[in-house]
Amino acid sequence: MSEHLLFTLLDIAGTFVFALSGAVAAKQRNLDLFGIVTIAFTVACGGGLIRDLCIGVTPPASLSSWPYLMVSAIAALVVIGAYRLVVRLKQPVLFFDALGLGLFAAAGAHKALLHVHSAEVAILLGMITGVGGGVMRDVLLNRVPLILQKEIYASAALLGATFEVVGELQNWSTQWVPWVAIGLCYGLRYLALQYHWNLPTFATAGDDVTPPSE
Amino acid sequence: MSEHLLFTLLDIAGTFVFALSGAVAAKQRNLDLFGIVTIAFTVACGGGLIRDLCIGVTPPASLSSWPYLMVSAIAALVVIGAYRLVVRLKQPVLFFDALGLGLFAAAGAHKALLHVHSAEVAILLGMITGVGGGVMRDVLLNRVPLILQKEIYASAALLGATFEVVGELQNWSTQWVPWVAIGLCYGLRYLALQYHWNLPTFATAGDDVTPPSE
Amino acid sequence: MSEHLLFTLLDIAGTFVFALSGAVAAKQRNLDLFGIVTIAFTVACGGGLIRDLCIGVTPPASLSSWPYLMVSAIAALVVIGAYRLVVRLKQPVLFFDALGLGLFAAAGAHKALLHVHSAEVAILLGMITGVGGGVMRDVLLNRVPLILQKEIYASAALLGATFEVVGELQNWSTQWVPWVAIGLCYGLRYLALQYHWNLPTFATAGDDVTPPSE
Repeated sequence: MSEHLLFTLLDIAGTFVFALSGAVAAKQRNLDLFGIVTIAFTVACGGGLIRDLCIGVTPPASLSSWPYLMVSAIAALVVIGAYRLVVRLKQPVLFFDALGLGLFAAAGAHKALLHVHSAEVAILLGMITGVGGGVMRDVLLNRVPLILQKEIYASAALLGATFEVVGELQNWSTQWVPWVAIGLCYGLRYLALQYHWNLPTFATAGDDVTPPSE
Repeated sequence: MSEHLLFTLLDIAGTFVFALSGAVAAKQRNLDLFGIVTIAFTVACGGGLIRDLCIGVTPPASLSSWPYLMVSAIAALVVIGAYRLVVRLKQPVLFFDALGLGLFAAAGAHKALLHVHSAEVAILLGMITGVGGGVMRDVLLNRVPLILQKEIYASAALLGATFEVVGELQNWSTQWVPWVAIGLCYGLRYLALQYHWNLPTFATAGDDVTPPSE
Repeated sequence: MSEHLLFTLLDIAGTFVFALSGAVAAKQRNLDLFGIVTIAFTVACGGGLIRDLCIGVTPPASLSSWPYLMVSAIAALVVIGAYRLVVRLKQPVLFFDALGLGLFAAAGAHKALLHVHSAEVAILLGMITGVGGGVMRDVLLNRVPLILQKEIYASAALLGATFEVVGELQNWSTQWVPWVAIGLCYGLRYLALQYHWNLPTFATAGDDVTPPSE
């Protein structure tokens, strides 16, 4: 399979799983049909949109290819139509997210490296491709992004994106580099969820440790 | 009247009515003078700014033409100086919004099509030109964007932008295409407000159907 | 010292003080290590990122130069490691902010003018460079941006950016123009903090004057 086709497929798969997780979150907040499709599309494409703007690709791929929008809409309809089924899968949002995260971090780092030729930018934008949509979802749903609070999440995307960029710069085979990058990201995120690993926080007496509100 | 002049005038008119609605919302939240002007400018120019970044027009038109900023400032002053008059007009925010929405969806779709030559991108960016400023206003005022929750709003912008793009691709006369696009958007939004039409939501037992909070 | 080096140093210094203020805010909200570094980086680089996207500089400088990220991470570590010391300095967030604001408004206006050759755009983007990171911090921390509510803050950035642009267009010496611009911005902000100067608000009976919530 050609490298280009591979990354296109990864992108579509990541889009679908991220859109699923976005639609579940939107439905749980009782948004309407348009709101559910929009949040699904935002989670799926928000990170890639930021990446494309930052590497100067206009219009951003997520706006100019029907598949992204179609896939987001299909995911939204699946969630609306088969919600009880989707929810019966344990913690579906979290595990869809973990898979999408790995797929997007690898594909995002690859695309950024292709356009910008800077390892640092590619790693950062790979991570942003992975986490940007979720951050935009949380901002739109009016809550502090979960990833800033206590989860090992962006760190997993950072690991995946870093491996992808190192692998490409070392000319390791594209047959396995992206899969290992995705696996590293998914694995770290999965272990963090399973064993409740968190990054440290640093509370001091007098801090506002209640959930933030206006 | 030349096509270019027509769309410039539509843009200015849309800017003014959106800025009015933004200034009313900001004043109701008791923001200061700078906050009122900023929210007015954000509602008026936020959607166009996102559109221009996505089609690669830098600097965005809303930053590089004095009229946009002037018109936003004037609208803010009108709201501050004649607030009781503005409010006495029934539901002014909603109806200013409906008119601005149609104006922006049509003008935004037109500009995007001119630069990108993709019907899909032009329709999406026409809609985003219409709704983007309001979404940015709601994010800055720290609330879940209204358009995601229950209103027929973005759908109206989508209808207007779609008609504008179809009309231009079919080479229908620019004498009436934008007006019909604006009328369709305004009409759908007006009817939705008048008859309380909403898009469906899909509450399930156990959903969070209370107003979202952190 | 060459003009270029001068502005690079101003940028780095502004990055550090803004990152300090961001890290303090993030730590007070009990975010984790990643959250603290991210908010530090966001406050430090958010305004410049918006500016670079608006003037068509891709990838944005804040993503493509290691120093910005390093400086943000160091500031975060300083805050984590020496928090009690940082806090013992009176109102550190506010005064770090005032200094960073002046540095960024001047350097941002300079860079925008260099790329876009429009005084208006340069002034607006100078101000946005100064305040954009703080607005993004407040949006991520889920609160209405302070600068929209009652402070003289953006006005100070506007003053500094305007002086910088006027000075450059008049070909006044780069030996003192940026310093005066920074001093004007810092001075106005300092006086506003010291004497509790606010911009006017315009409450009307019936307004929502309680803190905004969903």
